[in-house]
Amino acid sequence: MTTPQDIANQFVQFYYNTFDTNRAALGSLYRESSSLTWEGRTFSATNNIVEHFTSLPFEKVAHQVTTLDAQAASPASLIVMVTGALAIDGAPPMQYSQCFHLLQDGGSFYVFNDLFRLNLSG
Amino acid sequence: MTTPQDIANQFVQFYYNTFDTNRAALGSLYRESSSLTWEGRTFSATNNIVEHFTSLPFEKVAHQVTTLDAQAASPASLIVMVTGALAIDGAPPMQYSQCFHLLQDGGSFYVFNDLFRLNLSG
Repeated sequence: MTTPQDIANQFVQFYYNTFDTNRAALGSLYRESSSLTWEGRTFSATNNIVEHFTSLPFEKVAHQVTTLDAQAASPASLIVMVTGALAIDGAPPMQYSQCFHLLQDGGSFYVFNDLFRLNLSG
Repeated sequence: MTTPQDIANQFVQFYYNTFDTNRAALGSLYRESSSLTWEGRTFSATNNIVEHFTSLPFEKVAHQVTTLDAQAASPASLIVMVTGALAIDGAPPMQYSQCFHLLQDGGSFYVFNDLFRLNLSG
C-alpha cells in the first residue's frame, strides 16, 4: 500500500530535482487554482508561479532535505512539511521550511498550496 | 471581510498562548480525526495528542512567532505555516517550523493536520 509518506518522498525528490535543474519546468506541478506564498508574497495560477521561480535572481541552487513529514488531509490530498537547507550560487546553505498541500488528480498529485520561508535565526 | 491571514493570526496567538500556559487545554483545538506529527512521531485523536503534549519533559515553554503565512485550502479550510523560536525552561531559544491544516466547524476552526519540527542547523 502506498502511504502518504511514500507519495511525499517521491514528490519532494522530483520537486527539488526539477527546481535545482530547470525551474521553468515546475509549472507542470501547479494548476490555475494553485497558490504559492514565497517569503510572504503570494502568487496564484501556474503562469505567475512559474514567472516568480524563473525570475529568482540566482543561477545555481541546490536543496538538501533534512526532514520530510506527511499526513493525509483527505482521501485525495496530503499535507507535506519539509525542512532543509538550500545553497545559492555556491554560498553557505540557508535553512528553509516549506509546506505543500497536494491534491490528487487522476494518478498523480499537484500542488494546491505552497508556502515557503527561509529560517534565518533571530 | 475576514481573510485566511486574519483567522490564522487569531488561531496562532491562541494556540501558542494555550501551549505556553496550559498544554492540557490544547485538546479543545483538536478532534478525534486530527493528527499530530511531532518530530517524526504521529499521534492521532485528541486524547493521544493531549497525552503527548502533557508528557513533554519540560515545565516552562515560550513560543515566539517569526513568520506566519496562510492560504485558503478550500472554502472551509486553511493551511498555516509558522516559523519561530521556542525557549524551554529558560534555555536559549531553538528555531522551529509548524504547519497546520485548519478545518471550519460552525463558527470556529479546529486542527485537522499538525506537523512540527525543530530546525536544528547542520
